[in-house]
Amino acid sequence: MTSDRPGPSTRVRVWTLEGDSETRRRDTVVTEEPLEIRVSAGSRSQAVSVTMRTPGADFELAAGFVYGEGLVERGALRQVSYCADVARPDQLYNVVTVEVDAEAPPEPVRSGPVSSACGVCGSASLDVLRDRGLTPVAAGPTVPVETLYALPDALRAAQGVFTATGGLHAAGLFTPDGELLAVREDVGRHNAVDKLVGWALLGGRLPLAGTVLLVSGRAGYEIVQKAVTAGIPVVASVSAPSSLAVAVAEEFRVTLVGFLRGRRCNVYAVPDRLALPGVAAVVG
Amino acid sequence: MTSDRPGPSTRVRVWTLEGDSETRRRDTVVTEEPLEIRVSAGSRSQAVSVTMRTPGADFELAAGFVYGEGLVERGALRQVSYCADVARPDQLYNVVTVEVDAEAPPEPVRSGPVSSACGVCGSASLDVLRDRGLTPVAAGPTVPVETLYALPDALRAAQGVFTATGGLHAAGLFTPDGELLAVREDVGRHNAVDKLVGWALLGGRLPLAGTVLLVSGRAGYEIVQKAVTAGIPVVASVSAPSSLAVAVAEEFRVTLVGFLRGRRCNVYAVPDRLALPGVAAVVG
Repeated sequence: MTSDRPGPSTRVRVWTLEGDSETRRRDTVVTEEPLEIRVSAGSRSQAVSVTMRTPGADFELAAGFVYGEGLVERGALRQVSYCADVARPDQLYNVVTVEVDAEAPPEPVRSGPVSSACGVCGSASLDVLRDRGLTPVAAGPTVPVETLYALPDALRAAQGVFTATGGLHAAGLFTPDGELLAVREDVGRHNAVDKLVGWALLGGRLPLAGTVLLVSGRAGYEIVQKAVTAGIPVVASVSAPSSLAVAVAEEFRVTLVGFLRGRRCNVYAVPDRLALPGVAAVVG
Repeated sequence: MTSDRPGPSTRVRVWTLEGDSETRRRDTVVTEEPLEIRVSAGSRSQAVSVTMRTPGADFELAAGFVYGEGLVERGALRQVSYCADVARPDQLYNVVTVEVDAEAPPEPVRSGPVSSACGVCGSASLDVLRDRGLTPVAAGPTVPVETLYALPDALRAAQGVFTATGGLHAAGLFTPDGELLAVREDVGRHNAVDKLVGWALLGGRLPLAGTVLLVSGRAGYEIVQKAVTAGIPVVASVSAPSSLAVAVAEEFRVTLVGFLRGRRCNVYAVPDRLALPGVAAVVG
């Protein structure tokens, strides 16, 4: 069994737009891969959590999680190891077993968006979405870059609770002309997007063809996955995307924009929906 | 059955430190409360998720979540409502049932840190921690405010992957003198803290008495809860805390610092561990 051990960062291609110029280059994004945490005790092993994480310090993550959630006493920890009993070689470094001194393993406390039954690695996560019957988002719309540049200010202006607390994530849905359709806020980025999708579902507006989603934080796997589910063709973030977000966006034809700040942004997937002024240079 | 419906923000008292002066005042933080999402179909109801969220647009959140996770088809949604069948009046607005047109409800896909069996409201979340046997963090250490002000730069300097990707959360553990003990990075804030706690657990360093935890993002319920579990007495964040984070910090005697930027911060709980220069004013 051989496997490339995933690193903390991943190289991707990116189109950097700045004002009306464009540069195509290579860039680095943070790696996001699922980690299944199992607890073994007695003769049984139990998956207690699947979390999206950045590879590195995996044993610490697994030990800290089970301890922090109260699943294991401080003195009961025996050993932490990668689990060799995985379905595919590329999952070798994505399943960690915490062996504890107890009669039986605890019940699961949290499972993430990828169930353990579906396999835990980035490409398996894409398989899960395909198996759910999700298809690539329809072509269009065309969004002028100047419209894109104006969205963060429009979102910020619409954030009522953020102004009072400084503690909220926001998700805003816009037309290609930059008109704000809806904005929702939450302590959780995913919740803010769920609220927008729920708004559309309850109002009979799905699929959200021809819209642009802007999130106030980073764009990870779950944000892009939720956009695909709702048929949103353009996802923009004021911060960084993850490796798995880029992979899902490419697979399901979502235009993925990151670091949207001032009159500048990076495009990580499907740039053809943006009204680009032309290729200025190809670097790297 | 009566219940105050929780709002999106909560009033708290705060000590603002700026340079060597202090102002005591009232402030507003974002409300964080658990929401249990149930799906009912046929004659059965099934809890599918407990998420920490900001109250508001709860029906949209529930509908959007179950749709986004593929638990319900677009046309199968019948009704969304608060569930009257709750254990305590203060949970009335924290349990939402999505009624769908199907033979049986789906299996749960994700449960948060608070299991539904334990009741879903902020005070019940505190009960859960008490029931786990968690006790208030020990007194001390004393941290000079100038040491505190210097921590964000020290954390940033130690973030290797962030420099490359801009996409990572970091958690750093410091001595009261500002010496960095360990730093861990992850796409998930909670994972970065889990890695630190796991580092301490695997190295025989628990409890982490006399240390200061700095997180690069916001401080919510789970961050403070993990600090309590590990015995960390001071939690600082460069951004905002949530209402439930403040409540847990007060209950378990954790010094909670927010908006730590430049030579300025807000203290939301247990300020007596900070070497304060004195009360300059009491406002509000």
